[in-house]
Amino acid sequence: MAVYTQVSNSALAAFLADYELGIPLSFKGIAEGVENSNYFLETDRGKFILTLFEKRVRKEDLPFFIGLKQHLADRDFPCPRPIPGRDGVALRTLEGRPAVIVSFLPGLSLKTPRLDHCHALGAALARLHAEASDFAMTRPNQLGPDSWPDLWSGRTKDAEALQPGLARLIEDDIQETRRLTQVSQDLPHGIIHADLFPDNAFFLEGGFAGVIDFYFACSDVLAYDLAICLNAWAFGSDGQFDPAKGQALIAGYETVRKLMPQERHLLPALARGAALRFFLTRLIDWSETPADALVKPHDPLDYAKRLAFHRTTRSASDYGA
Amino acid sequence: MAVYTQVSNSALAAFLADYELGIPLSFKGIAEGVENSNYFLETDRGKFILTLFEKRVRKEDLPFFIGLKQHLADRDFPCPRPIPGRDGVALRTLEGRPAVIVSFLPGLSLKTPRLDHCHALGAALARLHAEASDFAMTRPNQLGPDSWPDLWSGRTKDAEALQPGLARLIEDDIQETRRLTQVSQDLPHGIIHADLFPDNAFFLEGGFAGVIDFYFACSDVLAYDLAICLNAWAFGSDGQFDPAKGQALIAGYETVRKLMPQERHLLPALARGAALRFFLTRLIDWSETPADALVKPHDPLDYAKRLAFHRTTRSASDYGA
Repeated sequence: MAVYTQVSNSALAAFLADYELGIPLSFKGIAEGVENSNYFLETDRGKFILTLFEKRVRKEDLPFFIGLKQHLADRDFPCPRPIPGRDGVALRTLEGRPAVIVSFLPGLSLKTPRLDHCHALGAALARLHAEASDFAMTRPNQLGPDSWPDLWSGRTKDAEALQPGLARLIEDDIQETRRLTQVSQDLPHGIIHADLFPDNAFFLEGGFAGVIDFYFACSDVLAYDLAICLNAWAFGSDGQFDPAKGQALIAGYETVRKLMPQERHLLPALARGAALRFFLTRLIDWSETPADALVKPHDPLDYAKRLAFHRTTRSASDYGA
Repeated sequence: MAVYTQVSNSALAAFLADYELGIPLSFKGIAEGVENSNYFLETDRGKFILTLFEKRVRKEDLPFFIGLKQHLADRDFPCPRPIPGRDGVALRTLEGRPAVIVSFLPGLSLKTPRLDHCHALGAALARLHAEASDFAMTRPNQLGPDSWPDLWSGRTKDAEALQPGLARLIEDDIQETRRLTQVSQDLPHGIIHADLFPDNAFFLEGGFAGVIDFYFACSDVLAYDLAICLNAWAFGSDGQFDPAKGQALIAGYETVRKLMPQERHLLPALARGAALRFFLTRLIDWSETPADALVKPHDPLDYAKRLAFHRTTRSASDYGA
């Protein structure tokens, strides 16, 4: 949550000269997104977010992310709409970095979503899947099951430092979920958000208002996206699963698209895999962030607790489906 | 530049219930201010900044800062206006921290101000001094000349690490400026901003639009504030003094208030003292910030270069006065 690249006034003026956005009235770095630098930009034509892509985002992925937002916005799915320059091109360069301006999406993200928020989010996720189903581009999931053994490699000590005995449990999780790519081959695939945490969903007066941060979006199993949301939305701050929230999320999803029997059958494995994926990347961030850094990484133990729950589930009904 | 305190949705809702600000539409942490956490808040009634005061700000100083902004805003000096709650009180509590909502001030800060910006800023500074002249509260300058020997104490090694030979020069600066409190006793005193760097001044279409960040404001010598601005606005990124910018700044100031002969006479000493003050606090921040921290402190050598210039000046005319 920081601004990594400073934008000089002259660079901003030169950059905006290629748009039809009018005169800048305000320009402030915002503490949103870990990977990129984001600025709130207001002009006499409206409010926008200017994003500069930092090193951790692969340049070759940007047309996919920007194209997806454009596609969804064209379908009236509430998400930031990329604003093209006068030449029709949205992905441009500012201060030596790839940069894009998107429309400002009103709404507030919720630290502690209620049941009705979970229900609305489930429906929004299914709608996102439906609207993106005819998006022409694809992008492999770089953090899918095939990547998990690599992410785990060499992390035994870090896991043990967090909680003695954890490494062996993670080894089991890796074993149990490593066949997920194969067994889920017959499940409905499509574009997934892959990072739809409460941070990335906006609400207004209780109602769903939109989705931001598509920088993990990729082509993968649709039900895996629901499994990610179960992990992100249906656990309390104590790490305990809240069956009512799980039920609300799945019921909301099914107001738009019914899960197939095979998706329900694999939900425990997908949920365990999703928890493993976030545990592993958080373990890496945790271990590689200096203790005194200003930006505190997420505690991987939150996801160790979720994994402990997923190891006990047997069917989709354990998640409220 | 970071958000230190997270605000939960329920805490925000409870906090806003004490205001007449309508329904929140947007709430985003902004990367502004090193000392506090700032949020952009939009409601159906307008745009605001919500500030939570972190540990480095002394709680007992807050009524002065908030009262000063209120006073200046009442005089139509462009600065953020504190918004009181329904009970008329602006300074409140959120997430266990003192907190205040102020009006959102449009404008952009300039990384590289031009001559006309320096002229406008000089005039704005003098206007700030004039409008604040009947503000009833006072606050001693905790970073005034009396504090400099203490700030320097034990820092010899840090200075030498930056530039061999620097420590002896700083000792000289301390000696030369330590009498500043006494010799400047007869100069006009009043409320000064004390931190009016380009970061803290807003412009719109080239014209001055306002001043933010009053958290170093205090009662001190008015010309010292001008000396701070000479350091902050009239040096290039190469550390060289730009006489045209100095001239513009002083001429702008004098469109509102003429400097007295004694103020002109002491301008070199005040400028040297101001540079010393920022050198010392930057040296401390530099030495105490871990090398891999995300928020990079300002390079103290920028102010060592300014000090080198101030050691050579003999009269106000060396600054364009």
